[in-house]
Amino acid sequence: MVIIMKENATEENIKNVCEYVNKFNLSTHVVNGAERSIIGVIGNVEILEDKPISSMEGVYDVVRISSPYKLVSRSAKPDSTVVRVKDVDIGGGSFVMMAGPCAVESYEQMLEAARAVKKSGAKVLRGGAYKPRSSPYSFQGLEEEGLKILNAVGQETGMVTITEIVSSSHIEKVSQYADILQVGSRNMQNFELLKEIGKSNMPVLLKRGLSSTIEEWLNAAEYIMKEGNPNVIFCERGIRTFETYTRNTLDLNAVAAVKNLSHLPVIVDPSHGTGRRDLIAPLSRAAVAVGADGLIIEVHPHPDMALSDGAQSLTPEEFDKVAKEVNKILLALKD
Amino acid sequence: MVIIMKENATEENIKNVCEYVNKFNLSTHVVNGAERSIIGVIGNVEILEDKPISSMEGVYDVVRISSPYKLVSRSAKPDSTVVRVKDVDIGGGSFVMMAGPCAVESYEQMLEAARAVKKSGAKVLRGGAYKPRSSPYSFQGLEEEGLKILNAVGQETGMVTITEIVSSSHIEKVSQYADILQVGSRNMQNFELLKEIGKSNMPVLLKRGLSSTIEEWLNAAEYIMKEGNPNVIFCERGIRTFETYTRNTLDLNAVAAVKNLSHLPVIVDPSHGTGRRDLIAPLSRAAVAVGADGLIIEVHPHPDMALSDGAQSLTPEEFDKVAKEVNKILLALKD
Amino acid sequence: MVIIMKENATEENIKNVCEYVNKFNLSTHVVNGAERSIIGVIGNVEILEDKPISSMEGVYDVVRISSPYKLVSRSAKPDSTVVRVKDVDIGGGSFVMMAGPCAVESYEQMLEAARAVKKSGAKVLRGGAYKPRSSPYSFQGLEEEGLKILNAVGQETGMVTITEIVSSSHIEKVSQYADILQVGSRNMQNFELLKEIGKSNMPVLLKRGLSSTIEEWLNAAEYIMKEGNPNVIFCERGIRTFETYTRNTLDLNAVAAVKNLSHLPVIVDPSHGTGRRDLIAPLSRAAVAVGADGLIIEVHPHPDMALSDGAQSLTPEEFDKVAKEVNKILLALKD
Amino acid sequence: MVIIMKENATEENIKNVCEYVNKFNLSTHVVNGAERSIIGVIGNVEILEDKPISSMEGVYDVVRISSPYKLVSRSAKPDSTVVRVKDVDIGGGSFVMMAGPCAVESYEQMLEAARAVKKSGAKVLRGGAYKPRSSPYSFQGLEEEGLKILNAVGQETGMVTITEIVSSSHIEKVSQYADILQVGSRNMQNFELLKEIGKSNMPVLLKRGLSSTIEEWLNAAEYIMKEGNPNVIFCERGIRTFETYTRNTLDLNAVAAVKNLSHLPVIVDPSHGTGRRDLIAPLSRAAVAVGADGLIIEVHPHPDMALSDGAQSLTPEEFDKVAKEVNKILLALKD
Repeated sequence: MVIIMKENATEENIKNVCEYVNKFNLSTHVVNGAERSIIGVIGNVEILEDKPISSMEGVYDVVRISSPYKLVSRSAKPDSTVVRVKDVDIGGGSFVMMAGPCAVESYEQMLEAARAVKKSGAKVLRGGAYKPRSSPYSFQGLEEEGLKILNAVGQETGMVTITEIVSSSHIEKVSQYADILQVGSRNMQNFELLKEIGKSNMPVLLKRGLSSTIEEWLNAAEYIMKEGNPNVIFCERGIRTFETYTRNTLDLNAVAAVKNLSHLPVIVDPSHGTGRRDLIAPLSRAAVAVGADGLIIEVHPHPDMALSDGAQSLTPEEFDKVAKEVNKILLALKD
Repeated sequence: MVIIMKENATEENIKNVCEYVNKFNLSTHVVNGAERSIIGVIGNVEILEDKPISSMEGVYDVVRISSPYKLVSRSAKPDSTVVRVKDVDIGGGSFVMMAGPCAVESYEQMLEAARAVKKSGAKVLRGGAYKPRSSPYSFQGLEEEGLKILNAVGQETGMVTITEIVSSSHIEKVSQYADILQVGSRNMQNFELLKEIGKSNMPVLLKRGLSSTIEEWLNAAEYIMKEGNPNVIFCERGIRTFETYTRNTLDLNAVAAVKNLSHLPVIVDPSHGTGRRDLIAPLSRAAVAVGADGLIIEVHPHPDMALSDGAQSLTPEEFDKVAKEVNKILLALKD
Repeated sequence: MVIIMKENATEENIKNVCEYVNKFNLSTHVVNGAERSIIGVIGNVEILEDKPISSMEGVYDVVRISSPYKLVSRSAKPDSTVVRVKDVDIGGGSFVMMAGPCAVESYEQMLEAARAVKKSGAKVLRGGAYKPRSSPYSFQGLEEEGLKILNAVGQETGMVTITEIVSSSHIEKVSQYADILQVGSRNMQNFELLKEIGKSNMPVLLKRGLSSTIEEWLNAAEYIMKEGNPNVIFCERGIRTFETYTRNTLDLNAVAAVKNLSHLPVIVDPSHGTGRRDLIAPLSRAAVAVGADGLIIEVHPHPDMALSDGAQSLTPEEFDKVAKEVNKILLALKD
Repeated sequence: MVIIMKENATEENIKNVCEYVNKFNLSTHVVNGAERSIIGVIGNVEILEDKPISSMEGVYDVVRISSPYKLVSRSAKPDSTVVRVKDVDIGGGSFVMMAGPCAVESYEQMLEAARAVKKSGAKVLRGGAYKPRSSPYSFQGLEEEGLKILNAVGQETGMVTITEIVSSSHIEKVSQYADILQVGSRNMQNFELLKEIGKSNMPVLLKRGLSSTIEEWLNAAEYIMKEGNPNVIFCERGIRTFETYTRNTLDLNAVAAVKNLSHLPVIVDPSHGTGRRDLIAPLSRAAVAVGADGLIIEVHPHPDMALSDGAQSLTPEEFDKVAKEVNKILLALKD
C-alpha cells in the first residue's frame, strides 16, 4: 500500500500516519519528494482496508496495490478451471452452447425449444421459472411449476439445465430441479444470496451487474468461492451506458480481461447484451473470437408468442445458423 | 400504446398486427403516413406489456404512453404523503435530518454520535448492523449485536432509528430493533426482498440503485406498495457515471423529478452521493434548496477511527454547521 | 411524427396543436385513447424539427419516427460503399489493416514501423503529426515536419497514409501529404471541421465521439456527405463508461448496428478501444468476427520508447500474430 | 510519481526502470514490499508524462501524484478570481444572472427578452448566432446577422453579451460584437480553438464536455490560460449518463469540487443541465446553494415559437420567479 501525502503535509502529519500504521505490525518507508512525501507500507496490509487513513490529516490519497480477490485470481491458480456439470465441461478449452427460452411457459414450448437447440449443438437448456421484472405488473414466471417443466424436459432430452435463482430461500428447491443456478445481474451484489450459494456445491453462472466494474464482479465470485464452492462461471451480459439503440452494451473487453485475471470460465449472453435479434449473430461470432468459453442465447420456437423478451429471441433456424458460424471460427482458431 | 411500422411494412403486416392486438379486446386505429404507418392502440394496454409486438414482422417500434407504476404516482394521489414514524413526520412539508455512523461499532460510539447529532437537530439515528461490502474480506457489521446497540441508543436518546436490511429472512428480527428499514442500492431490484417488506407495514427507505433509472426506482417502490405497505421513502444517493473524482454523482435532477412524479417523500444522502467529506456541506445545502424532504448524513464521533466509510463521515462539529446552513435555507424558502 | 397528449389534455389543447401543425401544410389524425389522445402527423415533418411542440400546452411527448440522417442511411443506398484510396479498397467485402505508431517521431521510426507492418499485410500507414492531448504540457506532435515524414515513408513503402486533422485551417496542408484524413473523437461534433472536410473530396475516417450515440455518429457523417464528400469511413474506438480497468469500452454492438443502418464502411480501433496491449489481440479477432471492414492498430518498433500511447502499442511481432489470427477468421467466415 | 512493480518483477526489472528514470535527472527510491516493490520518483517528473514506463517489463502501474494543470489550480492562486466584463463582476462573491434565448431569431425577439430578464436582475444577455446542432438539417443560427442583433440589443439595454463561438476563424468577428465568448460542450476539447482564444484577452465561458471528467475540464481551461488569457469562467451544463428522463444529469458535485480545486468562477446552466422546463427552478435554487457564482438560463418571450430548445426555455414570468428564489437563498447564506 502506498500513502500519498498532501503537498502541505507537515512532518507531524507524516509521523502520525506512520505511528498509526505501525500499530498494526506493518512497517513504513517514507520517501520525501520535491513536492510531497509518500509512505510505502509493507506487511499484511489487508488489515488496513477498513481504516480511514485517507481521511487522516495531511493524507492526499491511498493507493492499494494488491487486488482484494484471491481465490478467483489467476495468479492464485494459473490453470483454467473446468466446471463439470454431468457430462458437460465448461471452461478449459471446450466451448459450450446454452440456449432456450427466456421464460418457461409450458412443457410443449420447452420441449420444442430443447429438441431444436440440441440438434444445433446446445448442451445446456435455459429457461426462467422466476423472472425478476422491473414492473410488478409484468409476467413473473411459472415458479415451481416452471422448475418441474424444465426438469422434465432436461431429462427427456438429456440436456443439462440452468435457471435463475432470486432468493436464498429457493436454493434447495431449485437445486432439486436444475443443474446450474443462475444469479442475475440485479442480484450480483445480493451478498446474502451469494454466501448461501457458496455454502452449496452447485455450479453457478454469475451474471455481471448492469453497472458493475470488473473488480466488483470478481469480488462477487470471491464471495461464493470463499464459502467453499469452486464451481463459478462468469457471464457477461452487457453493461448500462448512455447508448440507447441497443438495450445494453456488450462489453467484450471485459471478457478478455477476466480471462486474464481469473481462472474461471466466462460465458457471453448476446441476447441481453444487445437486446436486438438482428445483432445476436454478429456478437455471437465476436464472443467466440474474443475467447469466451461459451454462449447463452435466448431461443424460442415462436418468438412472436413469447411471454418475455420475444424481441431478442432467435428462432431455432436462426440459432442453427449462429451455431454453424461459431463452429467455423472455433475451428479456424484451433488450427 | 402506439405501434410504429417500418417504412417497408406491407398492408399484410399491418393487418396481422391489428388482428393480434384485437384478440386482447383492444381497438386499433391505423394512421397511414407519407413514409410509414402508425397504429394507435386503445383500451387496457397493460395486457400487451409482455407480448413481443416489437418483433412482429413490419414493426419498427412500440411506444408505451402510460407509466407502468400506479400507486406511487402523483397522478394517483396528488397530495404529498407523510410517513409518520413515532413522533417524526417524513414528507409533506417537514424536513428531517437523519444522521449517525455508517456502521454500528459499539454502544459508546453510537451513544456519543446520537447525543451529538440530536443536539444539532437530527431526529433519526442511522447505523448499519449488516454491511454489504464489495469484498468479502471487508468488515461486514456487528449483525444482531449491532441491532441491539442501535435499539438501546435509540431508546436512551428518544430517537427514531434506521438500519439496512439485506435479506428477507431478517425482516422480523430487524423490525424488532429498528423503526425504519433501509433497502440499499445493491438491493433496489432484489424484488423478493421488496415484496416481503411490502407485506409488512414497516416504514422503508428505498435507496436508488447505482445505475437505476428514475422509472426503475419508481417501479421498485411500486413492488412494495403493491403488497400493501404505503410507508415508502425514496433516497437519492448518487449514481454511477464516468466521473471518478467523486465516488458517485449525486443526481439532484432526479430528486426534483421524483417530487413531481410521485407523492412519496424523497431524502438525499450526500455522504454516499459525493464520497468526500469536503463536498457534503455544499451538496446538503443544494439538496434542501432543490426540494428534498430530508437528509441522511454519516456522522462519526471520531471519523479517523471509523471501521467503514471514515473518509466520507463528518465530525459532530461539521454536522452541526451543515444543520445550521440547511435551516437558513429552509427558513428563506418558507418566506 | 406522433404527438402524445397528456392524460388531462383538453379538447382545446388538441385543437391548438393540430392548428399549429396544419399551418406547415401537414395533416393530422387524432386518435382518442382511454387515458389520452395521440395525434399522428403526416407529410414532410422535418419542418417541425425545431418547433417546440413538446412544450405546447397539453403535450406529453413527441415521437419522431424517421431518422434525421438520409445520405448515410442504408435505406437510401442498399449497396455497401467502397471507399477507394489509390489501390486500396475500404468496405464492400475487402478487409483492410491500418497500422503504425500513435505519433510520428522520426523518419527512422516511421520507416521501421511501416516496413514491418507492411510485411504483415497492412496497406495503410497511420501516424499522428498533430496530437490533441488532454494536457497542454503533453507532447503535441511534430506538426508539418511530421506530415512530411509520413508522406516520405508512404512513398518509400508504397503505402496509403492516414493522419489526424484538428483544424479546418489545416485541410489543404494535410491533404497534400496524406491520403486519408482522420477526425478524432474529440472533434466528432466539431461541425465546422466536418463541413469543410465535406467540401473537399478527401477520404475521411470519422472516429466515434467518446460519448456519442450511434445516431449522433451517423449524423456527423451526414454533415460531411451533405457537403458533397461521399468518402466517409466510420471508426469505432471505444466509448466512455463507468469501467476503469480498460481505458474505454470497445462497443462492438455499435459496429454491427452501423453496418445495418448505413452503407459506409466501419473500421475498429482496438488500441484506443481497450488501452491495454494485452487486450488488443482478442478484440481484433472479435472485431473481424463481428463484421468490421478493417482494423487500425498502433504499432511501434520500440513501444518502450514511444512518445505517446506506448502502453497500448504493439511490437511488430505482436502485430504480425494479430494479422495472422485475423486472416484465419476471415477465411473461415468466407467459406 | 510512484511506480508500482508487478508481484513477479525481477531485480533486473527494477534496476532497468530506475536506470531509465535516472537518465532524466530524477532520483529513485525503491521500497521492497512483502508482495511487490514500489519505486518513488523524485524531481521534475513532468518530463516522464509521455514516457511509456507503464509498459516497461515488470511494471504494474504508474501513479501520478501531482495534478497536470497549474495555472487554473487554487493551490497556485488561493484567492478567487474575479472576471470583470465592463461593469459586471463574475466570481469572487458576487452572483451573476445570465439569460436570454437559445438562438437569436430577430431584433424584436431579443429586445423583448433582454428587457424582461434585465428587469428581473440579469446583467448578461445570451443568444446564439452559430448553433452547433446534431443534425445538419436543423436550424444553424442567423450567423453574422445574429451577432449584429445581439450587439445592438446589448447596447440598447446596457447589458453585457455572451454568444457561442464554434471556429477559431470566427474569433475576431465575434469579439467585435460580443463581450464574452462561449465555448460549447462539443468544443471543450477542440484544442485549436482553445489555444486561439487563449491568445486573445476575451472573457470566455468554458462549458464542460458532455462526458468530460473534472480533470479534463480543468486541463481545457489550462490550455486557454497557458496562452496568456486569464479570463476563464467555467460552466457546468450537465453530463451524459444512462438516465434518459432528463436530457442530461446536472453534476453539482462538480461545481463544489471545481470551486475547491480552482480559483476560477463557476456558472451553472440548469436549462441544458435538465432539459426540462419544470426542473429549472429547483435546480437553479440548488446551484446557488451549492456555491455557484452565477446561472445561465434560457428565457424566450414566447417559448412556443422558439426556433431552438423551446422545451427547456422559461417565460420571462417564470424567470422572474426563479430570480426571486435565488435571491432569497443568496441572502440567507450571507447572514
